[in-house]
Amino acid sequence: MELSLSSPHSASLPLFYSHKSILLPTILNSNPKSIDFPSKTLFRRHNYKAQSSSSHTLLDDDDGFFLEDVPHLTDFLPDLPAYPNPLKNSQAYAVVKETFVRPEVAVAQNIVVQRDSPRGVHFRRAGPREKVYFKPEEVRACVVTCGGLCPGINTVIREIVCGLNYMYGVDDILGIEGGYKGFYSRNTLNLTPKVVNDIHKRGGTFIRTSRGGHDTHKIVDNIQDRGINQVYIIEVMAPKRSSSIHEEVERRCLQVAVAGIPKTIDNDIAVIDKSFGFDTAVEEAQRAINAAHVEAESVENGVGIVKLMGRYSGFIAMYATLASRDVDCCLIPESQFFLEGSGGLFEYIEERIKENGHMVIVIAEGAGQEYVSQSMGAVDERDRDASGNRLLLDVGLWLSEKIKDHFTNIHKTINMKYIDPTYMIRAIPSNASDNIYCTLLAHSAVHGAMAGYTGFTVGQVNSRHAYIPIARVTETNTVKLTDRTWARVLASTNQPTFTEVIGSFQGISSG
Amino acid sequence: MELSLSSPHSASLPLFYSHKSILLPTILNSNPKSIDFPSKTLFRRHNYKAQSSSSHTLLDDDDGFFLEDVPHLTDFLPDLPAYPNPLKNSQAYAVVKETFVRPEVAVAQNIVVQRDSPRGVHFRRAGPREKVYFKPEEVRACVVTCGGLCPGINTVIREIVCGLNYMYGVDDILGIEGGYKGFYSRNTLNLTPKVVNDIHKRGGTFIRTSRGGHDTHKIVDNIQDRGINQVYIIEVMAPKRSSSIHEEVERRCLQVAVAGIPKTIDNDIAVIDKSFGFDTAVEEAQRAINAAHVEAESVENGVGIVKLMGRYSGFIAMYATLASRDVDCCLIPESQFFLEGSGGLFEYIEERIKENGHMVIVIAEGAGQEYVSQSMGAVDERDRDASGNRLLLDVGLWLSEKIKDHFTNIHKTINMKYIDPTYMIRAIPSNASDNIYCTLLAHSAVHGAMAGYTGFTVGQVNSRHAYIPIARVTETNTVKLTDRTWARVLASTNQPTFTEVIGSFQGISSG
Amino acid sequence: MELSLSSPHSASLPLFYSHKSILLPTILNSNPKSIDFPSKTLFRRHNYKAQSSSSHTLLDDDDGFFLEDVPHLTDFLPDLPAYPNPLKNSQAYAVVKETFVRPEVAVAQNIVVQRDSPRGVHFRRAGPREKVYFKPEEVRACVVTCGGLCPGINTVIREIVCGLNYMYGVDDILGIEGGYKGFYSRNTLNLTPKVVNDIHKRGGTFIRTSRGGHDTHKIVDNIQDRGINQVYIIEVMAPKRSSSIHEEVERRCLQVAVAGIPKTIDNDIAVIDKSFGFDTAVEEAQRAINAAHVEAESVENGVGIVKLMGRYSGFIAMYATLASRDVDCCLIPESQFFLEGSGGLFEYIEERIKENGHMVIVIAEGAGQEYVSQSMGAVDERDRDASGNRLLLDVGLWLSEKIKDHFTNIHKTINMKYIDPTYMIRAIPSNASDNIYCTLLAHSAVHGAMAGYTGFTVGQVNSRHAYIPIARVTETNTVKLTDRTWARVLASTNQPTFTEVIGSFQGISSG
Amino acid sequence: MELSLSSPHSASLPLFYSHKSILLPTILNSNPKSIDFPSKTLFRRHNYKAQSSSSHTLLDDDDGFFLEDVPHLTDFLPDLPAYPNPLKNSQAYAVVKETFVRPEVAVAQNIVVQRDSPRGVHFRRAGPREKVYFKPEEVRACVVTCGGLCPGINTVIREIVCGLNYMYGVDDILGIEGGYKGFYSRNTLNLTPKVVNDIHKRGGTFIRTSRGGHDTHKIVDNIQDRGINQVYIIEVMAPKRSSSIHEEVERRCLQVAVAGIPKTIDNDIAVIDKSFGFDTAVEEAQRAINAAHVEAESVENGVGIVKLMGRYSGFIAMYATLASRDVDCCLIPESQFFLEGSGGLFEYIEERIKENGHMVIVIAEGAGQEYVSQSMGAVDERDRDASGNRLLLDVGLWLSEKIKDHFTNIHKTINMKYIDPTYMIRAIPSNASDNIYCTLLAHSAVHGAMAGYTGFTVGQVNSRHAYIPIARVTETNTVKLTDRTWARVLASTNQPTFTEVIGSFQGISSG
Repeated sequence: MELSLSSPHSASLPLFYSHKSILLPTILNSNPKSIDFPSKTLFRRHNYKAQSSSSHTLLDDDDGFFLEDVPHLTDFLPDLPAYPNPLKNSQAYAVVKETFVRPEVAVAQNIVVQRDSPRGVHFRRAGPREKVYFKPEEVRACVVTCGGLCPGINTVIREIVCGLNYMYGVDDILGIEGGYKGFYSRNTLNLTPKVVNDIHKRGGTFIRTSRGGHDTHKIVDNIQDRGINQVYIIEVMAPKRSSSIHEEVERRCLQVAVAGIPKTIDNDIAVIDKSFGFDTAVEEAQRAINAAHVEAESVENGVGIVKLMGRYSGFIAMYATLASRDVDCCLIPESQFFLEGSGGLFEYIEERIKENGHMVIVIAEGAGQEYVSQSMGAVDERDRDASGNRLLLDVGLWLSEKIKDHFTNIHKTINMKYIDPTYMIRAIPSNASDNIYCTLLAHSAVHGAMAGYTGFTVGQVNSRHAYIPIARVTETNTVKLTDRTWARVLASTNQPTFTEVIGSFQGISSG
Repeated sequence: MELSLSSPHSASLPLFYSHKSILLPTILNSNPKSIDFPSKTLFRRHNYKAQSSSSHTLLDDDDGFFLEDVPHLTDFLPDLPAYPNPLKNSQAYAVVKETFVRPEVAVAQNIVVQRDSPRGVHFRRAGPREKVYFKPEEVRACVVTCGGLCPGINTVIREIVCGLNYMYGVDDILGIEGGYKGFYSRNTLNLTPKVVNDIHKRGGTFIRTSRGGHDTHKIVDNIQDRGINQVYIIEVMAPKRSSSIHEEVERRCLQVAVAGIPKTIDNDIAVIDKSFGFDTAVEEAQRAINAAHVEAESVENGVGIVKLMGRYSGFIAMYATLASRDVDCCLIPESQFFLEGSGGLFEYIEERIKENGHMVIVIAEGAGQEYVSQSMGAVDERDRDASGNRLLLDVGLWLSEKIKDHFTNIHKTINMKYIDPTYMIRAIPSNASDNIYCTLLAHSAVHGAMAGYTGFTVGQVNSRHAYIPIARVTETNTVKLTDRTWARVLASTNQPTFTEVIGSFQGISSG
Repeated sequence: MELSLSSPHSASLPLFYSHKSILLPTILNSNPKSIDFPSKTLFRRHNYKAQSSSSHTLLDDDDGFFLEDVPHLTDFLPDLPAYPNPLKNSQAYAVVKETFVRPEVAVAQNIVVQRDSPRGVHFRRAGPREKVYFKPEEVRACVVTCGGLCPGINTVIREIVCGLNYMYGVDDILGIEGGYKGFYSRNTLNLTPKVVNDIHKRGGTFIRTSRGGHDTHKIVDNIQDRGINQVYIIEVMAPKRSSSIHEEVERRCLQVAVAGIPKTIDNDIAVIDKSFGFDTAVEEAQRAINAAHVEAESVENGVGIVKLMGRYSGFIAMYATLASRDVDCCLIPESQFFLEGSGGLFEYIEERIKENGHMVIVIAEGAGQEYVSQSMGAVDERDRDASGNRLLLDVGLWLSEKIKDHFTNIHKTINMKYIDPTYMIRAIPSNASDNIYCTLLAHSAVHGAMAGYTGFTVGQVNSRHAYIPIARVTETNTVKLTDRTWARVLASTNQPTFTEVIGSFQGISSG
Repeated sequence: MELSLSSPHSASLPLFYSHKSILLPTILNSNPKSIDFPSKTLFRRHNYKAQSSSSHTLLDDDDGFFLEDVPHLTDFLPDLPAYPNPLKNSQAYAVVKETFVRPEVAVAQNIVVQRDSPRGVHFRRAGPREKVYFKPEEVRACVVTCGGLCPGINTVIREIVCGLNYMYGVDDILGIEGGYKGFYSRNTLNLTPKVVNDIHKRGGTFIRTSRGGHDTHKIVDNIQDRGINQVYIIEVMAPKRSSSIHEEVERRCLQVAVAGIPKTIDNDIAVIDKSFGFDTAVEEAQRAINAAHVEAESVENGVGIVKLMGRYSGFIAMYATLASRDVDCCLIPESQFFLEGSGGLFEYIEERIKENGHMVIVIAEGAGQEYVSQSMGAVDERDRDASGNRLLLDVGLWLSEKIKDHFTNIHKTINMKYIDPTYMIRAIPSNASDNIYCTLLAHSAVHGAMAGYTGFTVGQVNSRHAYIPIARVTETNTVKLTDRTWARVLASTNQPTFTEVIGSFQGISSG
């Protein structure tokens, strides 16, 4: 069983595999010799090579259980030696019944089920493993933050540093400053528990961030040059970026674990329950909504408009609306709307003002972009910021103008107050709930990297921490209009569903 | 079809059943007549009568799936007519793919699994049902709050009222004032959406609360007298209390749905992910911890002590410690500790003060009660408050005195600052995250009661809303010392595990 | 030293008097017939009656003491009867040494003095008077709020109502809704202590506000029609508006006391220490500055810009800058600035970014309007909102664009974040300090009106509450660039003084 | 001119003088030779020697103007050379009309006056002087904080450091750690602008504090040994302590300027408008009062009690009561109260509970100490903490017990909630308003010390910053029961005045 010690995955599995989500039949007759490693009869892994070479016969007793696994260093470095996890001797973990997560333990993605539901996709449970693939004294880790701010980044940085240091005794940790570009820079920051001790009490990112600047080859060259063997990337997990580093690392057969902590205040990440900082953002958004409500209520025909974050998804707008009770209309990218005519926004505003004397609208930044671009002149689809985000025109300003124009046209005076709290939300420190979440994410990432996993991200799946292939979280999560949560928003605001002319609108937007 | 309409559960099931958690084999050959109701081949229900009369043969294909079901009015009123759910015509729900939760859908409790794990316990998913067992115009609902305060009660009240009114058109809702005693009082409060419109912005409970005063017979008499047919109880779900009302209702065969929304700031409720208000409490506790840290840090040999809520469980103390980074020691009821000698608290305090010059201790109110009672004189075990809670001596004051004495004895000066923020935490309004949670709890309760369920509570199980038999949530949830979360606390504070003399201590406490 | 210098009022002054600040010689031998009024030997009042009948001999021992008095109902209703103040019997005031403010007591405006300074201007001290000119049961008071929001309006409303009711037993108080326009509306709101009990906990104005709509004759007609005899106006004290009502009242010889509580979040009111809500606004502005600082610090070459209120004066910007330590440049209307060239803003930004990597700019909304109008196209000076405020172009957006353009031109990348927190600041409830201030302002107004004063405002002068003629507070207060406070800002930010080209700039602005 | 340069006070004045507040007649015929220094015809200084040798003839034209002056180094070091103030060349001060405060400028203490009021006491205005008595490069300053915490200490520390460095170019500043004891310790902390850059964002004191440990001789020895020539003491200005250092310095004829920044959260300092941190404390106290109110309101017969700081004075309790509207009774040390019988507290509680169902009591920690000591056993008057404060028994706990007992006796159930937010208030960072105040205090202290003043404190007098002899601020300020502010509290809470039996009570307390 020495082999299995050095390789967590049975030799009978192809060495190369991707992480696409393809259902595989159970691999039969595998012969697990140790409970240390996933029994192949227990786990069906997603493996594209395997799939292509196997027939898809579903066995009678198949219950549809399969595992979306993450890569491991031994996939391409089969002879990598393993060591006992230093946590074994930790006083703190002494009373824990199972100090280490057994490899066969997984977290179910589909938990709203029926008696005969297939068991579906599972992810590896996050947590410390019995064996690690790095000697602590040989670890040189680095941390990098990319893209926009969100509450909690500093907590994640702090806990990667403290987690590596306190739990594993690692003390060589570099902060790559200013995003990916920082890899090409001469300077890095030494991160020690002392240096990061108080950074979770401030917003922003201690090691600065930037958009773009991603050149996989240069970055991996730099990783090699500096002798880095653990890379922690705090970033929105974009398809062509985060995953490319670990792929290049694998191509070069380097012993470098690449761990991602998905960051996006918009919460638009697939699979995971929520992105860190999201709770804090929804909380802070209440201030802006309250202000809009007070302003609108204090004048005749007051209309308060609050623009919230949400490029492609309206989660912040939706949850901020649900948490407040003062919002009369919530507009999100996923739900098209129209202004004029029956069932349109103008009509609804007129009604609400007539009934209540005022109204509050929350709009996600990505909502109604089709209109804005028509209205404000052609914006080339290729216009993107350095992170590749499509540059959005300010829909809040656009909407304010449109509403003002409409009421001017119908000779009715309204009082419009437009609030854009974006930066005031992004820049605050995380609240207690996000602090705890960030801590667990960071520690999970540390445990995973030490255990030799790579090309993985960490996240909460149904409130349990799991390791998820990067490829899975690069898909964008959006509000499902056909789910009950959106219906709840509609029910609570009483706003129109804008369904009547979606057909005609789509005609416009595709025109 | 008429049969199934009048009885959601197959006639082949015994009419009377309890909700104890006992594994039942699949009941074969049940004959579901309608997809409206759970197919008996799909669901294995917990049924104590059924169990006693059945043999326990586990079938070969048994996968261990079973459902912990909640009672339904048709269990004892089999001829109760059902009506289409008015939400069917709601514009808001028009776009929802499945407006109504199908009865066979359940939420899995055990989601950290292995390939061969039994599928385990499931709960009915919460949400609107296709059929309701009340005509909206005939509903007379009441809401009552009992026990201590916690953030979010007013949001729950508001959303029961608004949920009943907006979603189902119910407009006869009474607020029972001042807890169970209010049932015997002449006056009630009419609750309308207008009356409750802004109450979620304040702490406390709009309809007042009290401890004790529970007389099941008088309460049910009163329910009958007033013509109430839906009872919403916001209370810690204590064994002999909450459930007794619906049992008495059942005994009298009344068409009264009894729904519980479990309330305890301590988060010590079994099964559910967290109690409402918990996030807010952990957030607010940070203020006290910060203050203790600042006070301790600003003097020589400063010791800051913060007492947090937690009679029988240390969840608030534990999570507040994890969210902060400034706590050096967290003491909870579940983990015994000792003061003197090697590995004891005094030794640890001396060490921390020597190293850092100061330290911060968080102690849950229920921790160390054995010592306190020894020290402060016998407290009769029968001393309980009106809610039946054991009266606790103030462990924070006791600990402060003990530490002061110790350092006086060893001729070392320390600066002790003791903070008890309990009421300042309990009394604040809920934050955004809890506001959303409270809303969903309230709406789930409304959907459940309208659908004829009774004797049930609502709660989040693995982040999905479910209906849970009251009996299940009366069990107390405590911090598992053998879980990794507690180990994480120990690792982050670096405090001793107090394991050495637990044996001898237990001798004391049992002596 | 010719007479006019030492005495601004000569016999040649018109008989009709205004409340302008004109020095009057001591009026000798006046013969006060009632203790209700200031003894003429003690006070030199601005009083046209007295003036016309007195000789203007300046005595050798003149010390330059004079009083800026406020009008009194007996000025035009000399036979108005007075009554004992009901506070005489108040238990609360029983222990007060001097329950009532003696009429000869005044508050000094000039208190930074030299040994030989003239004693200068004084204002009547605010507070209850021994005699009142209204029977409580005959009072019908009204409250109106006009113009934009600021924190504390609701506290002022609440305390006018509670002050009138609790201290004087008045219970007929009307809320005029929606600003001056509300006078023409059929409906008013009955304001009772119960109705206003909790309004101080929310932002905005309970009785709504509006701009403009001021028609003095119609308003006074309405006052007569409704039988109102005390008018409380919460408004910026604009020259042609607030004072005109009491002048018209006087012209019609009505027994109507008109009291103003000056409202402007900008703090740009002459004479008084600060306007209510100002402290709260400066406090809240810190959030935006913190956010800008975090955003700027977290990226390379980050430039955070915060626009704060301040149409004609930069007090909020100045004090918010002093309270924070994170601002590198503060731009206010009073201090012209220029962008290009040596000593200009661009040069300074380049320097700071080179040194620090980031910078934060705070700009008052009224700063740099000359540039904006040039840049954004002619804005007609006559463009004013309904309150008569000049419509300002958004200088924050303009400045952001200009800075971006500049750095594009010099091929340097910067990261610009622009925050406009205006509505989020205006709409919050007042903090404790402003709550107390608002209470005292409201009570002073009530005492003053009951005592028969009219055409007056209340305000703190050197931290003492005083009655000030409306005419005096209609002057705009601005930041004195030649005072040390502005120098302190410059010293703390280290920003350029922009003095070099002020000459040339003035050429531009006057061109 | 040389004479005047080396001595700011005319040679004709005795060199030694004390700072007692004794009215002196104008010293005639003094012969000021330089406008740099106060003209003796302009200023009447308090001078004990002068007084003793002069006759007290009040001249006919005497207007009662006199100056409470502060000591100056040249009083005992007449030949000390002066230098031009480096601010002369500061760009920031270039536009200021009068960069330097002229020595003859004073701030009036008595500003509520009558026509014939004597002009009364004045204090030197704070601010930069034309001449300084230290070469910046020779300054070695130190900062020490003593006694309990209050919001804003760190801002004062920061601004002493930044003020000295940025305005005067001083860069040798020591932090004495842990209060007076720190003078005897080997270690000090080097304070630079960089080190203190962010400390104002946290509560507490960066250089730690302690009580007691004051040994004047050892401290001054240490000051000499270390070559310190400017001492900044942030402390409550106690009679025998703060002033003794500068007296000893004077006795030894050292060129050491001693400046005090009076610190006490209780606001019980005579002369000055308010102590720093007071606004923040009153603000933060609102949280506790709100919590008490919510708790009391949410139960039947709820009584919320909040204990606030205030050993000898009730300012925080009084202002917190005024700022809130939810307090029914405010008890302060200055106003005796009694419990039993007619007009007593119990009777009032019974009434309020009958009317309102609940009540909120705010009690200052020093209130009712006479009762507490009687009730809890003899507390020796000599029991004092290391700062010399009388140790107070917890009046909040005592009152809670008493009220509970009373209602038990009369067989009425009440719900008592007692909150002691003391440390949570003391430990928070200062708000914006206090940040500005602390900045001005620190800068005034720096200007004063550089200008050669010593034995002085800084403070706001009628909202203007002034230099005040330490001796004056060691007097305790208390709430004047005979002032209108206390009457306002009584009026707003409607509480009894407890006047009936004060006589008999005084009998008790003096017995």
